[in-house]
Amino acid sequence: MAEKTLYNYRVEPQDVDFTRRATLAALSSVILNTAGNDAFGKGFGVNVLNEENHSWVLARMAFEFDRLPIQYTDYTVATWVSDYGRLLTTRNFTFCDANGVEFGRSATQWVVIDLKSRTAVNLQAMDESYAHAVVNIPPPIELPRKIRQVNPTQTVEHRVVYSDIDFNSHVNTMRYLDMMLDMLPIEQLAHEGFVRLDVHFLHECCYGQTLTVGYEQRDNVAFFEISNEEKVVAVKASIEWK
Amino acid sequence: MAEKTLYNYRVEPQDVDFTRRATLAALSSVILNTAGNDAFGKGFGVNVLNEENHSWVLARMAFEFDRLPIQYTDYTVATWVSDYGRLLTTRNFTFCDANGVEFGRSATQWVVIDLKSRTAVNLQAMDESYAHAVVNIPPPIELPRKIRQVNPTQTVEHRVVYSDIDFNSHVNTMRYLDMMLDMLPIEQLAHEGFVRLDVHFLHECCYGQTLTVGYEQRDNVAFFEISNEEKVVAVKASIEWK
Repeated sequence: MAEKTLYNYRVEPQDVDFTRRATLAALSSVILNTAGNDAFGKGFGVNVLNEENHSWVLARMAFEFDRLPIQYTDYTVATWVSDYGRLLTTRNFTFCDANGVEFGRSATQWVVIDLKSRTAVNLQAMDESYAHAVVNIPPPIELPRKIRQVNPTQTVEHRVVYSDIDFNSHVNTMRYLDMMLDMLPIEQLAHEGFVRLDVHFLHECCYGQTLTVGYEQRDNVAFFEISNEEKVVAVKASIEWK
Repeated sequence: MAEKTLYNYRVEPQDVDFTRRATLAALSSVILNTAGNDAFGKGFGVNVLNEENHSWVLARMAFEFDRLPIQYTDYTVATWVSDYGRLLTTRNFTFCDANGVEFGRSATQWVVIDLKSRTAVNLQAMDESYAHAVVNIPPPIELPRKIRQVNPTQTVEHRVVYSDIDFNSHVNTMRYLDMMLDMLPIEQLAHEGFVRLDVHFLHECCYGQTLTVGYEQRDNVAFFEISNEEKVVAVKASIEWK
């Protein structure tokens, strides 16, 4: 029976903001790198999928941090795949400090796409290494929440440049988060305590496109919507503080 | 006698661009992280300097890559401090692939500043752990070249946002590189073969400032100048391709 796999990290100086605590973008990067490395090590990484012209694409992500770890904090991320259906698979994460105290958790949902047709591949056709990797432990967090209507009260335009794009020539996840976080009042970003992020990736954005990033604050939740020139919504997200 | 210290890395998916080769910004990040980790491990990291309200500040950097490593390449970075004077110290790097073939090299020059007065500290007053770390091997590359007049033919404005700033509330090095690289024609960024970067950091840029990034191409060299609202030049750089 498969078990959770552990990865050790340290909050490096380049991961922190002016409060000396890890940024949400840096922690997202850790989540995605852990996912990538775990898949790579278990034989179903993008390198293997690429051989059939397939690739992993992140569809939804939710994470919660009870507190954001400060610079030089050592921590351990546990990750496991809890299930997969025809289209979506769920990969989970918990973050524990050096004393074993859990301070964060995440659930991510992924699809496999065919790089030529840009359509989803049936996950049931995955190599049996994937079935063997499933761990019978449910997600440690409420799955990514649906984000309904966003009515932006502020918008900024963002032209997609070279440094925004990844190996697929699409805007990378951290840059989407940066676009959204950069709209928040700086005081909000200095908030200490609980934070939860939910994000849905609906459409890929490419080099040279001009995106519109919309932001609406309702009480202690910020809602975001990123759309392209054709008014197609590419990303929806919310950030909640407590 | 001190020796070079080795650190192992792999080109991760988040380090590459659409050509699947590591970006100059990602390789710069590796250089700076290696510097930070080596200093940390040897007892003169920012954590120790902060106790006296001092910090390391990068003044100049040069690097050359004969070729940019592709995704999932394992490589080893060797680093050593070759010398220090009253104001500047030189830390060097070589990049070798799994066969021990050197494919890149760098020299970085650092000052220690007093965080309150924002002025340079005499390095001769550093703890003797620093003297013990010096390795009697010269830099593997011509030191950062002086960059004289830049006469931009293209400029863009960049407002400094939350995600641009580091723990010091100043624009971080990788974001300066991004601002410059994002101005280049995308074909230039797909260049294979030798590339050399020289960069001088002259003045710190802060949250909320609007910077002007200027770019001039002369033959196979791109020159850049980043200045603030008061027309003070903050960064000068050049990138040469062969």
